Amino acid sequence: MEQQRFTLINTATGERAADAVIDPAVMGLSPSETDWKIRLYRMRGGPSDGIDAVEIDNGHLQLVVLPTRGMGIWKGRCGRIPLEWNSPVEFPVHPSLVDHARRGGIGWLDGFNELICRCGLAWNGAPGTDTVHDADGNVISDQFLSVHGRIANLIAHEVHAETDPQGLLRLIGIIDETSMFGERLQLTSVLSTATGSSEFTINDTVKNLGGRPAEVELLYHCNFGPPLLGEGSTFHTAAARVAPHNARAAEDMKSWETFLGPTVGYAEQVYFISPVSDQSGQGHVVLCSADRHAAVAVDFETSTLPWFTLWKCTQEEAFGYVCGLEPGSSLPNNRSFERQQGRVILLEPGQSINFSLRFRIAESEAPVNRLINEVDRLQRDSLRRTETNPVPDLSPV
Amino acid sequence: MEQQRFTLINTATGERAADAVIDPAVMGLSPSETDWKIRLYRMRGGPSDGIDAVEIDNGHLQLVVLPTRGMGIWKGRCGRIPLEWNSPVEFPVHPSLVDHARRGGIGWLDGFNELICRCGLAWNGAPGTDTVHDADGNVISDQFLSVHGRIANLIAHEVHAETDPQGLLRLIGIIDETSMFGERLQLTSVLSTATGSSEFTINDTVKNLGGRPAEVELLYHCNFGPPLLGEGSTFHTAAARVAPHNARAAEDMKSWETFLGPTVGYAEQVYFISPVSDQSGQGHVVLCSADRHAAVAVDFETSTLPWFTLWKCTQEEAFGYVCGLEPGSSLPNNRSFERQQGRVILLEPGQSINFSLRFRIAESEAPVNRLINEVDRLQRDSLRRTETNPVPDLSPV
Amino acid sequence: MEQQRFTLINTATGERAADAVIDPAVMGLSPSETDWKIRLYRMRGGPSDGIDAVEIDNGHLQLVVLPTRGMGIWKGRCGRIPLEWNSPVEFPVHPSLVDHARRGGIGWLDGFNELICRCGLAWNGAPGTDTVHDADGNVISDQFLSVHGRIANLIAHEVHAETDPQGLLRLIGIIDETSMFGERLQLTSVLSTATGSSEFTINDTVKNLGGRPAEVELLYHCNFGPPLLGEGSTFHTAAARVAPHNARAAEDMKSWETFLGPTVGYAEQVYFISPVSDQSGQGHVVLCSADRHAAVAVDFETSTLPWFTLWKCTQEEAFGYVCGLEPGSSLPNNRSFERQQGRVILLEPGQSINFSLRFRIAESEAPVNRLINEVDRLQRDSLRRTETNPVPDLSPV
Repeated sequence: MEQQRFTLINTATGERAADAVIDPAVMGLSPSETDWKIRLYRMRGGPSDGIDAVEIDNGHLQLVVLPTRGMGIWKGRCGRIPLEWNSPVEFPVHPSLVDHARRGGIGWLDGFNELICRCGLAWNGAPGTDTVHDADGNVISDQFLSVHGRIANLIAHEVHAETDPQGLLRLIGIIDETSMFGERLQLTSVLSTATGSSEFTINDTVKNLGGRPAEVELLYHCNFGPPLLGEGSTFHTAAARVAPHNARAAEDMKSWETFLGPTVGYAEQVYFISPVSDQSGQGHVVLCSADRHAAVAVDFETSTLPWFTLWKCTQEEAFGYVCGLEPGSSLPNNRSFERQQGRVILLEPGQSINFSLRFRIAESEAPVNRLINEVDRLQRDSLRRTETNPVPDLSPV
Repeated sequence: MEQQRFTLINTATGERAADAVIDPAVMGLSPSETDWKIRLYRMRGGPSDGIDAVEIDNGHLQLVVLPTRGMGIWKGRCGRIPLEWNSPVEFPVHPSLVDHARRGGIGWLDGFNELICRCGLAWNGAPGTDTVHDADGNVISDQFLSVHGRIANLIAHEVHAETDPQGLLRLIGIIDETSMFGERLQLTSVLSTATGSSEFTINDTVKNLGGRPAEVELLYHCNFGPPLLGEGSTFHTAAARVAPHNARAAEDMKSWETFLGPTVGYAEQVYFISPVSDQSGQGHVVLCSADRHAAVAVDFETSTLPWFTLWKCTQEEAFGYVCGLEPGSSLPNNRSFERQQGRVILLEPGQSINFSLRFRIAESEAPVNRLINEVDRLQRDSLRRTETNPVPDLSPV
Repeated sequence: MEQQRFTLINTATGERAADAVIDPAVMGLSPSETDWKIRLYRMRGGPSDGIDAVEIDNGHLQLVVLPTRGMGIWKGRCGRIPLEWNSPVEFPVHPSLVDHARRGGIGWLDGFNELICRCGLAWNGAPGTDTVHDADGNVISDQFLSVHGRIANLIAHEVHAETDPQGLLRLIGIIDETSMFGERLQLTSVLSTATGSSEFTINDTVKNLGGRPAEVELLYHCNFGPPLLGEGSTFHTAAARVAPHNARAAEDMKSWETFLGPTVGYAEQVYFISPVSDQSGQGHVVLCSADRHAAVAVDFETSTLPWFTLWKCTQEEAFGYVCGLEPGSSLPNNRSFERQQGRVILLEPGQSINFSLRFRIAESEAPVNRLINEVDRLQRDSLRRTETNPVPDLSPV
């Protein structure tokens, strides 16, 4: 396979590939190779009308990426294992239909149904007013921040597909999060997967294109439902510290690493984790099905993603039975609190920061156990402190 | 005519009929039959850009339905009689351009111009904060409700046209009103009309797809301008009780059943009605032109639509000279008040409720008189109580 | 060249020219004539997805007009001179993605990047609550006004191109700014340019289609970056009175007519001007490059545009280095203040008002000097009063 680049969408030049398929035949390759393809199409009707989607299929693993929704990954499948959850919001929602201010600033939830979506770039986390003071205590700015920021509802203005001689497929998207008299941040997102593999990686670069230092927060909301999530599914990580987000989470500290089945009236439980890094600077988490026949590992560079949030939302299936694995540059508290705690990134003009994650899917017992053993080994070599109650440096009062 | 189904839009499968016409020729019928047709097209330019419209023409009666605007009926015509009003909002407005929060929560009015639109599903009526308390008086939720709810600005993700051997044409639309951590309601709307007839029916089912009991309010905002509305037009119903909504409405209790011509500076007057049901469980209202040569009757199942609101808005033509006939599951007060009065539907998980209305258009004197006589006869057999002032169980103080 | 009209978009009739080019060949003219063209196209991807653009090229001057964004002029070029600025918002933003209420009512800035955009029609200027009282001091209405009004984010429902025997190219757009129980205003915008010329004119008519008197404010936000703007660029006008908008603007009254280069940390400075009219009732301003080799003059009818605002925003290039030349019916203060000062237009039902501007681009030293001399001569014949501090009739406290 040669290095080739195909432009799918380019707003500046006006290019947009008509519903396009890129595959070995298009590239003049012999049909005996792995039957991969990359396909751009436009959704029609309902809240999805006008959404551009890109299906990337490496021959074994399929992902549907939404350039219209911040290059989020809507759904996927790896062999026989669906990578998805069933949100009550059934279809992708065009950003023009999402009113972030709705319901006191949680309107973002009207469009929330992705396998993986980004929360950021300038902020993420709980809605509320973020008041910035100068050194003398004077108010510099006073901005209401809606939940989880703008990026998941911004539209990529450049989308390219790439192939390379190593058999890697890449999907590249560029998105501006900007306004006049506001931040000017740019996300360049690279999704990669090797033909035939059970892995994919996300490699994101956020650049401050503005003229002054800019705050950045980025959190990867990676959401899984059945079959990876189910009654008795387990969570595995090597953590230096674990704390419940609030009193509700503290109720079940003894069982925070296992999951309930769909439970009527269950209220979400959130745990904050400071991950242990391995020798290559990676943090690791694993979500494993109860029968230990399927698992997903998320590996993430802790130099820029030093925090991890576990979101247990094992409520009724009809409302979205789901668990969130959320590596982040910070915790999903309002930015005002995260700033106080020193967890907000500050990018100088022209400066970039890189975020890197890998997703590995294990489809049978042996590989599942390998993923879990990796994490266990890392934890054995390091201390874990488990808080039984919310702690003031991680949870606002 | 055979039973046939044509999918016009299906977001799940990606189907969308290109601008499509279904007619006897398409179905292989002989051209001597009634010249009906169903046509899907997409609007272009202005606030309507991207709106899908379906024209359904039974050979005598034409209706334009907007899947993009909650399956509302934009305009119609029955023989020589236009079924419409002239809103200052001239064109259908794409939901993405409607900011419900605008002007203190009445942004819905920026897109209001339909002959028939639904107000619901989770709430309708006046904007304001709806505070829900538990049995101990604690606040459970505190939500700002914008006027008339979400449904009129939600987009159908499935639209089908059907024909059947009885000569009925049907248009079916399915719409989700949902969000994560919110309600999960689904509307299945069926519009039917027989070839060549002057009638059409709406048969709606609202289902609670969520995991907990869900509140439902639905009101049909059926709006008529000239020629049905004009100076001296009359309103007819069989009512058990009639009350003015407020002091303004109470000013004209003596003439509440007749209409003014377009009147400079007229402020809307609203009357709340508890309709009498006939033996088949139907309530009835008639709007009749001053010359008694044209009328429309709205018949509605009172088991689920036990209330009726008459909206007199006989203001200047330039601002929208209109009258609203509004069968509802409740009255268009804020849901907080309607809940107190026991008028909000509660659907258990998986439970459905059906709403059924029929519209009959009379195009000459004899059929007009038949419609009015029906109502008069029903009223004669039952008492009517007319309140001269707003009453506390119907109007919030 | 004959008088011909080409409909590009007409929502009422459903017409939309497919990506269309009108040029001499299309019109059966000989190819030896000036190579003008008018081209309609649709933008794809990013925040611009679905935006209709019209390129109008008179053979020497090119402008890109956005029917989807209020017939604003996105960018232009006259010979070798770009007419544009580099907003941090790089691409045109579809109005459906602009939440006017964002950031305390300045969400309009999320889509601000045009060379020329209108602020109006019912209001423009600073965001805030506009409380209207009756003669007895009672509150009649209490409306939050977001910055700069609705018109720049409303979509034209009719767009026509015209040619005429005098070699004029015209682009006509019609836009409604309306809602139920609100204003009903209509803008008919005519952009004209002669083949081969360095000039263009805007001739706008605003009509009150509503049933009651309606307030109108219109301001033309004409924004220029390099090469017209640069360190040492100069501003020229004939003014009866000049005043700083606020204390920040008052800091530099001695140099208000010259511009800084891009300046880190520069905070905008705004000057309010009461222009002198020439014998034909025109006010004049000129922006001139430092080398005096390029300039733009804006001429405007002061009978309806009696005010002029100079917006100096010579901040870092990355955040938008720009200067605004802003003829207006009023000053860009909140409408509540402008009403107190008697600067808000009141249109009776059916009444229209016309706004007329001309833009002349000078591309070399001699024509540049002619533009400046015109203004100087006019100023020499009239007194100028320069306020050194904000004054209460122009700036709210």
